[in-house]
Amino acid sequence: MSDGIRVTVWNEGIHEKQLKRCQETYPNGMGKAIGEYLEKQPGIGSVHYSELDSPEQGLADDVLNGTDVMTWWGHTAHDKVTDENAARVQKRVLEGMGLIVLHSGHMSKPFRRLMGTGCFLKWREHGDNGEKERLWVADPSHPIMNGIPEYIELPNTEMYGEPFGIPQPDQLVFISWFQGGEVFRSGCCWHREAGKVFYFRPGHETFPIYYNEHVRRVIYNAVLWAAPTRLAGGFTQGNVQPLEKME
Amino acid sequence: MSDGIRVTVWNEGIHEKQLKRCQETYPNGMGKAIGEYLEKQPGIGSVHYSELDSPEQGLADDVLNGTDVMTWWGHTAHDKVTDENAARVQKRVLEGMGLIVLHSGHMSKPFRRLMGTGCFLKWREHGDNGEKERLWVADPSHPIMNGIPEYIELPNTEMYGEPFGIPQPDQLVFISWFQGGEVFRSGCCWHREAGKVFYFRPGHETFPIYYNEHVRRVIYNAVLWAAPTRLAGGFTQGNVQPLEKME
Amino acid sequence: MSDGIRVTVWNEGIHEKQLKRCQETYPNGMGKAIGEYLEKQPGIGSVHYSELDSPEQGLADDVLNGTDVMTWWGHTAHDKVTDENAARVQKRVLEGMGLIVLHSGHMSKPFRRLMGTGCFLKWREHGDNGEKERLWVADPSHPIMNGIPEYIELPNTEMYGEPFGIPQPDQLVFISWFQGGEVFRSGCCWHREAGKVFYFRPGHETFPIYYNEHVRRVIYNAVLWAAPTRLAGGFTQGNVQPLEKME
Amino acid sequence: MSDGIRVTVWNEGIHEKQLKRCQETYPNGMGKAIGEYLEKQPGIGSVHYSELDSPEQGLADDVLNGTDVMTWWGHTAHDKVTDENAARVQKRVLEGMGLIVLHSGHMSKPFRRLMGTGCFLKWREHGDNGEKERLWVADPSHPIMNGIPEYIELPNTEMYGEPFGIPQPDQLVFISWFQGGEVFRSGCCWHREAGKVFYFRPGHETFPIYYNEHVRRVIYNAVLWAAPTRLAGGFTQGNVQPLEKME
Repeated sequence: MSDGIRVTVWNEGIHEKQLKRCQETYPNGMGKAIGEYLEKQPGIGSVHYSELDSPEQGLADDVLNGTDVMTWWGHTAHDKVTDENAARVQKRVLEGMGLIVLHSGHMSKPFRRLMGTGCFLKWREHGDNGEKERLWVADPSHPIMNGIPEYIELPNTEMYGEPFGIPQPDQLVFISWFQGGEVFRSGCCWHREAGKVFYFRPGHETFPIYYNEHVRRVIYNAVLWAAPTRLAGGFTQGNVQPLEKME
Repeated sequence: MSDGIRVTVWNEGIHEKQLKRCQETYPNGMGKAIGEYLEKQPGIGSVHYSELDSPEQGLADDVLNGTDVMTWWGHTAHDKVTDENAARVQKRVLEGMGLIVLHSGHMSKPFRRLMGTGCFLKWREHGDNGEKERLWVADPSHPIMNGIPEYIELPNTEMYGEPFGIPQPDQLVFISWFQGGEVFRSGCCWHREAGKVFYFRPGHETFPIYYNEHVRRVIYNAVLWAAPTRLAGGFTQGNVQPLEKME
Repeated sequence: MSDGIRVTVWNEGIHEKQLKRCQETYPNGMGKAIGEYLEKQPGIGSVHYSELDSPEQGLADDVLNGTDVMTWWGHTAHDKVTDENAARVQKRVLEGMGLIVLHSGHMSKPFRRLMGTGCFLKWREHGDNGEKERLWVADPSHPIMNGIPEYIELPNTEMYGEPFGIPQPDQLVFISWFQGGEVFRSGCCWHREAGKVFYFRPGHETFPIYYNEHVRRVIYNAVLWAAPTRLAGGFTQGNVQPLEKME
Repeated sequence: MSDGIRVTVWNEGIHEKQLKRCQETYPNGMGKAIGEYLEKQPGIGSVHYSELDSPEQGLADDVLNGTDVMTWWGHTAHDKVTDENAARVQKRVLEGMGLIVLHSGHMSKPFRRLMGTGCFLKWREHGDNGEKERLWVADPSHPIMNGIPEYIELPNTEMYGEPFGIPQPDQLVFISWFQGGEVFRSGCCWHREAGKVFYFRPGHETFPIYYNEHVRRVIYNAVLWAAPTRLAGGFTQGNVQPLEKME
């Protein structure tokens, strides 16, 4: 990775065209809000922006093959992503690409395929201002926690609550508290064959969460963590000769 | 579970019709070899036998809804199981049904959907007699280890080797040694939403592995372990009211 | 376990002698409040009561050797338990005895020895009535969740908050929400050699938490889960002969 | 970590004084064989060498406080390390120091305290040349696997076999095959509060294992992985005020 990690920010890009409040909060789009911080960080080689409206839904072979870590934000059009493209993202993760799934991306096709579960959850939008969330650090030794205080407080959020239909995380790094009475596993790490997946709950199409310095730092840390190990070899079904003599 | 666990033994049932050596080893079929031991064990309510050739591939709604734990053996016709039926097995597991996946079932559609990975592995058939395998107990506290010695030795097996493209098991209970020089995670437990999945490597269409007393005991223990917890409620995507007053 | 699980309820037994409010809440002592429910449940063979003031601190060899699962409540006198006795409890767990550690038992010597960490946490006693806690089910497939609703609400509790200095649980089954703004991993399972350990947060010397039907059910379920697998053999350091011929 | 990771190589240093064959294999001592490779790698700031015979057993406060990651080799004198020093190493790990425990270090006091278990295993020294070991990669996505082939073959080793009395690793990265018929979890990662622990099986006082390029690379990768996250804050028992208003 001598030239830095190649990041692709995948953004559904629909709320930006339809919701006035989204436009006000994210005048350059949510993708740019996520990527502009990454662009300036050490170790990042490049940030590419893809949207559902991009050619081949922003998931063409040359995009995927040129991506070390992809961030994924989608909400209202999960079904529009073709099964073929979802399968290709899944395949690339299994081959080593990191995947950072944000907020409502829990219902995206690539994430659900990689988890093997329904990924359902409870949710609530409360009035115009949502409600308070506090993300508590559950594993301070994890590299994604680098530079993060013992909790991140977000004053205005949409609630997500347990039960969250995911496999037990390999490492659980954040647990959220919500004003309305719920909890949520809001930072979850999984290894999947040669790749890594991080689910990070914060985000919303109208709340300015992707400008929060701690949220941005977590996403950046997660990109560093999810960058491919670049192991020689991969996973294949193969018929092999014995390594030992067998009479 | 006052009337005992309702088991369905699902068997592909093709080698039995085509391979003379399979017929010699398993004159009543592999399904029966797996189920006949279970039928006599305490806590088992019933054992139902399903095959790929059964109506609706042996996976009709009334079969699935009447099953607490399903064992799955398939090898040569994974693709024949329809995507719809594979999805229904997956859904039932997420709702609580236990699933015991045996040997070459690692490439079955329901297992791969539940894992979210490719589930590939190395393999080797060595001459007529295969090679020696020794399954070492890696977690003696696990209920599936009840009554099992510190290792199970199988003199004639087909080799399966790492890397095995699965998510890290929630509990790894067996690790196999092979004569030819490989190792394999051969007993793996996962929780998936309300259900449990156990992958158990031993088995083959011509080697008499499903008559081995320890292999049978492990499958029985796994049925007890995978039986549904029958939790009230389930996993749904839902919009909920706050539990706390929010001004 | 044909005659049922032999439970020992270990209770520090000091608040009962010193705190009027403890005596009012638990007129027969906290140990009895924990054990009287277990005594009536199916699968329980016997319930023995031990206290710090019992001979050999209630941890004599014949007590430990005759115990399948021990529940542990202590708070104000952790240091009074001798290092020798703490080491013997640890050793028995590694040999297969289940251990259910309750509430302030997180600072007990046997628990800290088994975890290998400090086991520190945040805490708060708020006025006479404490504050509200809600324990959310994080793993509905787990046997300890049998018969438990999606959350347990306790109106009056002492708060415990993250970071909780424990090893990542092998299975995390409850996450708590607190009125004052914190979260906590309040139901945690670990396998330790041939034994199992469950930490369960609810409890207090003056709040009537051990009369709550759900709390009692969880403790009972945990006893069933933690009962020894009774594997032949154990863990020893040993010099062994090769199983294969080596020239 | 702008000036690089500060490594301390702790070496018991007794076989070097007593065993001719150890002197022949490791003329500069085992510590130097482990450290000389690290000294030249990118990201390493300094390598300090400590031995049991060093002042304060090489574990003085200024040594521990100036160490980001410690490697530990001991075999014949585990009991000579004082309980106080073992407790101080444990405490430093919980505060963030990485610890790489090598081969027979599985019986060292700091490791056993951090694991909370006995850490026993089977072992065998076979003639003058030992036997063949093959370490298979079990998690190719893990950063410790960077640059490592699908297996590492060591022609001459002392055998270590399961059951290995450790807590289930948070990530299991290597599984060993032995010529004599055993398997072993030979690369194991744990998070412990703010610190990380890696157990790596290869090594011996007379076999030249610490000159093997892959073994050296694994130790280096593990140092990078175990370097402290340097989270603000730590783990303490503390009484805290509520974050939310409570009437």
